[in-house]
Order: sequence, then structure tokens, then C-alpha cells
Amino acid sequence: MTARILASSGVPVRQSSVRAHNLALVLNQVATSPEPISRAAAASATGLTRATVSALVDDLIAGGLLTELEPQPRSGAGRPAAGLAVSPDGPAGLGLEINVDYLAACVMDLSGTVRHRLVEHADQRLSDARTALGALVALARRAVTLADDLPLAGVALAVPGLVAADGIVRVAPNLGWQDVDAAALLRDQLGLPVTVDNEANLAALSELRTAGSSRTFVYVSGEIGIGAGIVLDGELYRGVHGWSGEIGHMPVYPDGPVCRCGARGCLEQYAGIPALELLDPAPGPALDRAGAALGIALAGVINLLDVDTIVLGGSYAPLLPRLRGGIEAELGRRVLTAELAPITLRAAALGADAAMCGAAGSVVRAVRDDPAAYLGRAGRI
Amino acid sequence: MTARILASSGVPVRQSSVRAHNLALVLNQVATSPEPISRAAAASATGLTRATVSALVDDLIAGGLLTELEPQPRSGAGRPAAGLAVSPDGPAGLGLEINVDYLAACVMDLSGTVRHRLVEHADQRLSDARTALGALVALARRAVTLADDLPLAGVALAVPGLVAADGIVRVAPNLGWQDVDAAALLRDQLGLPVTVDNEANLAALSELRTAGSSRTFVYVSGEIGIGAGIVLDGELYRGVHGWSGEIGHMPVYPDGPVCRCGARGCLEQYAGIPALELLDPAPGPALDRAGAALGIALAGVINLLDVDTIVLGGSYAPLLPRLRGGIEAELGRRVLTAELAPITLRAAALGADAAMCGAAGSVVRAVRDDPAAYLGRAGRI
Repeated sequence: MTARILASSGVPVRQSSVRAHNLALVLNQVATSPEPISRAAAASATGLTRATVSALVDDLIAGGLLTELEPQPRSGAGRPAAGLAVSPDGPAGLGLEINVDYLAACVMDLSGTVRHRLVEHADQRLSDARTALGALVALARRAVTLADDLPLAGVALAVPGLVAADGIVRVAPNLGWQDVDAAALLRDQLGLPVTVDNEANLAALSELRTAGSSRTFVYVSGEIGIGAGIVLDGELYRGVHGWSGEIGHMPVYPDGPVCRCGARGCLEQYAGIPALELLDPAPGPALDRAGAALGIALAGVINLLDVDTIVLGGSYAPLLPRLRGGIEAELGRRVLTAELAPITLRAAALGADAAMCGAAGSVVRAVRDDPAAYLGRAGRI
Repeated sequence: MTARILASSGVPVRQSSVRAHNLALVLNQVATSPEPISRAAAASATGLTRATVSALVDDLIAGGLLTELEPQPRSGAGRPAAGLAVSPDGPAGLGLEINVDYLAACVMDLSGTVRHRLVEHADQRLSDARTALGALVALARRAVTLADDLPLAGVALAVPGLVAADGIVRVAPNLGWQDVDAAALLRDQLGLPVTVDNEANLAALSELRTAGSSRTFVYVSGEIGIGAGIVLDGELYRGVHGWSGEIGHMPVYPDGPVCRCGARGCLEQYAGIPALELLDPAPGPALDRAGAALGIALAGVINLLDVDTIVLGGSYAPLLPRLRGGIEAELGRRVLTAELAPITLRAAALGADAAMCGAAGSVVRAVRDDPAAYLGRAGRI
């Protein structure tokens, strides 16, 4: 509707923004169709005229974002259907993740498929920010080499910490980082646009994009630190400064052991992965304690926010069967509305890759939402 | 903009909704102007034609919602300026509040001014829901009598409990209520439309409407129970079922005393008004303990939501000077970003009347947002 009003307004100064808007409309229409679609179907779905859609499609094909599949004789499965599809050789997103005990990189193509994936285990607490980012750049270059068939639209980095609006990592307690301009360093080394975001936020967005996702949930990412991504009515809630979701530092037992952040009895002290004592011969009591601590913190979250779905991600996802009993016992006891409405507790669809995929996905999403900007940068229009 | 597009679309089936929309536009324009404004100024501010505005204004005057002040010779202060203003005799809202130890009623006129206010102290825990609501009806009738110069547009009731979408109070732990259809009873007795909402939600909305309010804050209402209203970016966040803000049942010391809700160590056990021991000869230690417990719970809230403003309302407002030290000490220790960004902790602008005013204000707001519906009900159009 908006598109048509704008397109027919005929005001010359808005012409380029109308075109940008309509390019995105057509690209997203094709990208979200389960099957290739015809130009006519794209016109009908977007409400644009067939002539307008054809001109836009030609630009998107010339720019390498769309491809037009030739009609095939119907001869069984496996043949691509005729019509428009997102180009498998279109601009891709490079998703990076730095966490306390691993580095990761993946390349996601414009259709949202992960084409390459690299994970390197190494304790980042032993190195300073520059060294850690140097290792990440090396991993990123390996991923870029693997993906040399694809143009890269940009890079997004997931970090377990507080990221300011300008992309500077203000604090990442478990990495020992303070005021690290990770974006500038990666930009210099990789020569691509770079954004930085909190890992739980990116993982929550990634979860939100999976089919059948709830519209309102709290995603809890369990690693050495614990973060949360809060999704309310289909939108990531970031908070006043972009620092929401620091569930790992919710007080659970206020007189408990001192946390890395300086406070006592934070959730991380009981339910961060090291506290689970997974390498011990009998981790049972530690897992029980972690489940109870998670349940106490999540009861506070649910009483406060009235969310009905909790998604456990990162290293928590495979541990959920073992943690569930402890969590649900505390929720049953402590959530005021436990008897009025059920609470869904489930593992993340993407498991440990959610943050990295969320990072790569944010690059792909940015291209899809503004293909004109990408084509302009790439010198293709 | 929308108004003009709709108004010029000329589709007959939408004619009545266009008129309803434009009536609200003009009424709100006049209501939010600090001074009376002319018809021409109302036209210019709303983007409607002068002829349209004049017709709408005539209807609003005939319906008793607006008044037109005669031009006065300029002869000093005190004389009303010429122009349109909200009618001082226009439809008013009756706000009711039932809380654990008091009942309250107020009449707010269409301009938002509280014209009458009644508060009756009585322990509602001693009576069942029907008896308590009977006493509230008696108080409401006294308020209606006081306001016999004003037509009442409706009634809103603030309760310290969980209210379902259909207006039924599912649980109000401190009143001992379960599944009470307070709206139906009040409607039968008072013969007016009735809505029911959580008291902290209504108080937070009331706070949001005061001049200079933050757009994002958590309002904490301290009475025998403790509730919160969460305002994110200018909107009340209600949660999936409308049950957000049960901060009184956030666990503070998980092994602490048993709460009325059945769980252990809820915030209410330390910081509900009875726990403050205000009637004791030396309430100091109890107030210290309450401040610390509030600080611990609010540190969790801020770590989770990244809000930068906490508003203490209800009985907490006058106690803030005594509670502030304890709260801020815990926030300083436990909020991960305490050193990166300041947190504002302040008393509610409206003090103990916030919920009742929020209730009355919700009725007034409903008339302002849909005057056509009110005029239709009142048989004036």
C-alpha cells in the first residue's frame, strides 16, 4: 500500500527512495517464497505493476541478487521450477563469534543457507583483546577463502558483552574486555563493513527467524557467561542503552560467592557452564544446583515480564533434559501465575550456532532490506 | 496525514469512521493545547479544512465536550482567553481503587482535573470480595453524588492483582480474591460501563501522562503488596496475558520466609509495607532491610531490562528518602552497568493517588480517543 502511494506520488526528489523501497519489496517477496515465483506473481503479491516489477527484477538480476530459472520439462523431482529465486551466488554475510572458550565464523548466502562454518576452541581469557581479535581475523580469512565464490556484503560480530550504539564493546566481563573497538579492527583487517552486537541478542533474532517461532520469548544463552535476548511481540527489546538481557548477573542468592562482575550470588556463579562441573565424575549435584538457580532467576523474569516461553540456547540446549526438572520445580513454586497459564521451556532450534548464524543473518537481512545500498556500494548501479 | 487520506477517499462505508477519527483528532488537539485555541488554529494543527473542523467543533460543543469562550477585553489576568477549550461540564471519569487497607474513589473531568476525591481506610482482608465491593459501591455513590453536575462516561477500577482480558480478577493474593467478576458487580450497581486493571499498571500510565515523564521506566507501587508497571518507549508493557509487573514475587532470598503466594523469600516479605514495621518504636533495621531487598530485586530488573529510571510510588513515595541509601547501595554493587550509565531513582509525581487517578484518567482518555462512541452512547448524535 505504502509502496503504491509513494510510487504514484511522482515527486522527483523521492524517486530514488521509492525505487530503493520497491527493490527491497520485490527481493523480499522472492526470498520468502517457498518456491521460485514468476514476475507476474511477484507483481500481484507486492501490488506493483508488472512493468515496474520487471524493471526492478532486471536490476536485481544484473546486480547478482536474483536469478531466473528456465522452465524445465516436468520429469520428476530434483529439477528446479521455473521462475525467480534468490541467486545462490548473491552477496553473503560473514558471521563471527568470539566467546570465552571458542571462536567461530560462518558464511551465510543470500537465501539464508549456511555455506561454510568454522569453529576453533581456545580459551580467550588467556589473551588480550588484540590477540583474540587477531586469531578471529585469521579464522575469518579462512572462511572468506572457503567462500571465494561469493561476494561478501559485510561482517557481523557476536560478543558476550555490552555493546554501545557506536559498536564499541564497553564491557565483556568474561573476556576481560573494556572499551574495545572491535569493529574498527575487523574493518581494517578485512576491508568490509562491520557491525557488532551482543551474542544473546543475535541468537534470539536467529531463533525468531526460525519457522514456527513464538513472537514473545526470552532466549537464554548459556556459556561461561549467561546472556539473554528478550523478544517481545516479534521485536528484540534492546533497552535504553542496548544493554538488556544481562540475566547472568541477576542476583539469585544475594550472599553467595563473588562473581567476576564484583557482585555476590549472580546466576552465573551457579549456572555458568564452569559451575556445572561437567568434567567431574559426578556432576549431578552441580546440575541440580544450576537448574534450581536458573529456575529462581527465570521465575523472577516471568513474574516481571509475563512471557510464556523460555528458550535455552548455547551450551544449555543439549543439557536441557538434565536441567528441566530443577528449573520447572522452581517455576512451579515461584511463578505467581503458574497454575493459571502454562510455561513452555524448550531448547533453541539452532543450538550452539545460533549467535554466529544470527550475526551472518543480520548481514543478509540488511542486504535484503536495502538492496539499493548494497548495489550502490558494490558499484553495480 | 492519515486523516486527510481517509477524509478525501470518499468511500461511503468509511464515512462514519472518518468522522469518528476526525472528532477525536480535534478534541485531542483542543485538550492538549495549553491555552484555548481558535477554530482556524485547530484546522491548521490537524491538517483538516476549516469547514470540516467547524462542523466537528459544532458537534463537540452540542455534545457537551467542548466549549467556546467569548473574546474578552484585555484587562489583566484571570479572564479566560477566547477560543475553544474542553468543557468543564463535559463527561468525567470515575476512578475507583480497592487496596488491602483502603478504598478510594475520584472524579476526573474531561480536562484531566480531579474534581472530587474520597479515601476510606479499612482492612479489606477482613471481608470477602462481595462485601468489599459493596463498600466500594457505597463510596462510589458518594463520589457520584458529589459530582452530580458532571455526566459520568464510565468507571475504571484499580485492583492489586492479576486481571484477565475479560476484566475478571483472576488472583489478588493480598485481598484473598480468586476469579472475582468485579466489573459485572460494579456495572449492575452503578449502571455505567466498567473496566478493571491492575493498580500498578494504571499508576504507571498516570505517571507517564505527567509532564516531563521519562518514556521508559519501571514504576514500583509499594503497599501491603508490591506491584510494578513497566513502561517501554512510551507504552505500557502488559505481557502475554496482561500479568506483567509482579515484582513483589521476584525471589530475593530464595530460602527466606514463606510468602502469601506460597513461595519463599519474595520481595514482599522484606519490602511490603507491613515488613517496614513503621509503627514500631525503632523501624530503622526493617527499613534498611527493605531498602536492600528492593535494591536486590531492582538490580535484577535493570540488568534484565536496561531501564534507566525507577519510579517509587504508593506508600513508597514518601519513604524514598529513608529507602534510597539501601536501594542505591545494592544497585551500585549489582547493576553490571552501574559505572557506565546513571540510574535515576525518584518518587512518583502523584504519590498515593496515582492508581486511582490512572483509573479515572483511563475513562477520560477513552472519551477523548473516541468521542463519537461516547456521544452515541449518550444519545447525543
